[in-house]
Amino acid sequence: MASPYNRIYNFSAGPCTLPVPVLEEAREDLLNYKGTGMSVMEMSHRSKQFGAIMAAAEADFRSLLGVPSHYRVLFLQGGASTQFAMVPMNFLQEGQIADYVTTGFWGAKALEAAHLVGLCRKVWDGKENNYNCVPDMQALEFDSTSAYIHFTSNETIQGVQFKSDPALVASLVCDMSSDILSRPVDIENYAMIYAGAQKNMGPAGVTVVVASEDFIESRADGIQPIFDYSQHAANDSMQNTPPCWSIYMCGLVYKHMLATGGVVAAQALCSARSSVLYAAIDGSGGFYRGHAAMDSRSMMNVTFSLPTEELSGTFAKEAEKAGLDGLKGHRALGGIRASIYNAFPLEGCVALADFMGEFAKRNG
Amino acid sequence: MASPYNRIYNFSAGPCTLPVPVLEEAREDLLNYKGTGMSVMEMSHRSKQFGAIMAAAEADFRSLLGVPSHYRVLFLQGGASTQFAMVPMNFLQEGQIADYVTTGFWGAKALEAAHLVGLCRKVWDGKENNYNCVPDMQALEFDSTSAYIHFTSNETIQGVQFKSDPALVASLVCDMSSDILSRPVDIENYAMIYAGAQKNMGPAGVTVVVASEDFIESRADGIQPIFDYSQHAANDSMQNTPPCWSIYMCGLVYKHMLATGGVVAAQALCSARSSVLYAAIDGSGGFYRGHAAMDSRSMMNVTFSLPTEELSGTFAKEAEKAGLDGLKGHRALGGIRASIYNAFPLEGCVALADFMGEFAKRNG
Repeated sequence: MASPYNRIYNFSAGPCTLPVPVLEEAREDLLNYKGTGMSVMEMSHRSKQFGAIMAAAEADFRSLLGVPSHYRVLFLQGGASTQFAMVPMNFLQEGQIADYVTTGFWGAKALEAAHLVGLCRKVWDGKENNYNCVPDMQALEFDSTSAYIHFTSNETIQGVQFKSDPALVASLVCDMSSDILSRPVDIENYAMIYAGAQKNMGPAGVTVVVASEDFIESRADGIQPIFDYSQHAANDSMQNTPPCWSIYMCGLVYKHMLATGGVVAAQALCSARSSVLYAAIDGSGGFYRGHAAMDSRSMMNVTFSLPTEELSGTFAKEAEKAGLDGLKGHRALGGIRASIYNAFPLEGCVALADFMGEFAKRNG
Repeated sequence: MASPYNRIYNFSAGPCTLPVPVLEEAREDLLNYKGTGMSVMEMSHRSKQFGAIMAAAEADFRSLLGVPSHYRVLFLQGGASTQFAMVPMNFLQEGQIADYVTTGFWGAKALEAAHLVGLCRKVWDGKENNYNCVPDMQALEFDSTSAYIHFTSNETIQGVQFKSDPALVASLVCDMSSDILSRPVDIENYAMIYAGAQKNMGPAGVTVVVASEDFIESRADGIQPIFDYSQHAANDSMQNTPPCWSIYMCGLVYKHMLATGGVVAAQALCSARSSVLYAAIDGSGGFYRGHAAMDSRSMMNVTFSLPTEELSGTFAKEAEKAGLDGLKGHRALGGIRASIYNAFPLEGCVALADFMGEFAKRNG
């Protein structure tokens, strides 16, 4: 067990494990936040108390990723799926074309949404290889006139991940939902990044958008205000009531990260966690087979299969009984998926690796 | 003080006071929800544990309002403002016209969003009377071919409220964000109702939509899946990760309401709370002047002015010092606004009425 609270090892692909000290602080302040006489859930979003919570969350996020001052940080609702629609609604204007690089399930969803808005070009698509790798972005041919280039830094279902920030002379838009804050990022390489909170940052219900002011201002006219980035920016993410509790929880996670080494420490831990599991796969004599090509392996989602799907099912069930929860692979891929985001305890990976070795011995 | 936790009386217009037993239960289960070994915030939305939480929330909501089986109940993101856009995107098709009844700030916003989609008719607008009353819906002339008729059951800024469900032969769409679950509702009078949670149901971050299956199926083609009610219905509100924590909290509020008399008891309490404050206004010899016309007075938001705006400012400040928080009126109207939603304690209204009497004596 992972803590004095009888907590399990939760390998869920998101929502997922949060840091225990963050949950403890949320519990401590639940009925009366720091002497205000109310819960954060009960505060007017226009109150000075909540204003301070939101300002601190933004400042700490900026600090963690080194966000330059000419980029806006927005806290929106609707998940990455809403961004799939909002990005082309705002930035793919009549007569333009947008470039999409598709390395898995979520990138394909983003492209589908863009097709409903305007012309898109599928620059690269990993489908024929069952999305088991990512391309070298630098080697791809983009249209120099494209409105933007969209890609997904980490695909949760297939478990493939880009290892660095592409340096392109273009407006790069990246869905970083599943690996944001897991490594330093060259923000200036991007026009915009976005990320649902529920992997590395907090509970579901809030999506963080980082976008350059110039890019935001280039948005199309006539968009519904609630889908218009420039309106959200002009209203400091308070065009309407924001998802206050989720923002508060993200803020606690940011503070916790700053106090424990920031994204550099997070990256080292992500590397350690995933190395333990990939070593267990590679050392199993072929019993476990990793889905992702070596150079595309994700540090967030480790995907592998067993000799049969039936055995994968048995593995997931027995693991659950051993306190290793949420390992069944996504139905689109089958097999096993261990999602090990920022707050996942390293000892949980060691426990899973031990279980893998023992299971292989019994069933190999 | 309102409870053993040194809580204040929170008259905020939303987010706002939640029931103390609900907050206590959330705190109790924060690090380990009922032996699952994780927080509700950490659960996969596809897990059986969260599935049970969501199913119970829907069942209890249906039970509270008597929602017939041919209506769907959806838990969405983006607040009522997103519904302002989604309603016309789904239901105002080319060649059609939609009718809007505008009784305040929020209804006007809904109409603005609809104008971006298609043709709308302003059937009634209270602007010339500074939105101080609601019309008799039965007496208005609607176009029999209109796609739908939209209105706002309670306007939080002006404090005006409809007292009953209009019975019209038309597709009626109602924004009930600020008075849902405060009285029984004839659901079958409506094609659709929607409500942000952060007044009567829970924390910000989730919006409940109740719509008849026929109405949902009548939606336009080619809508972005994430803005398409039929897609949300087909996926049981899990087209993407739902705002799990906010749904969980709403579920706790629903259970608490069912255990304390449901919407009939809620209505009696709303009446008692608002009566205390309107009596203080009417008994002040003209020192306090209510904004709303007598027959349109809201039971949720009691709006009134003092002889001068300066005095209103003094009132709000002194009240805050006395533990009566959030009374400053919205900048669009000025004066004082006491928002007294379902979970607001009656003794808070008595305390405010006492303060009003004492303040009038000192300053009258």
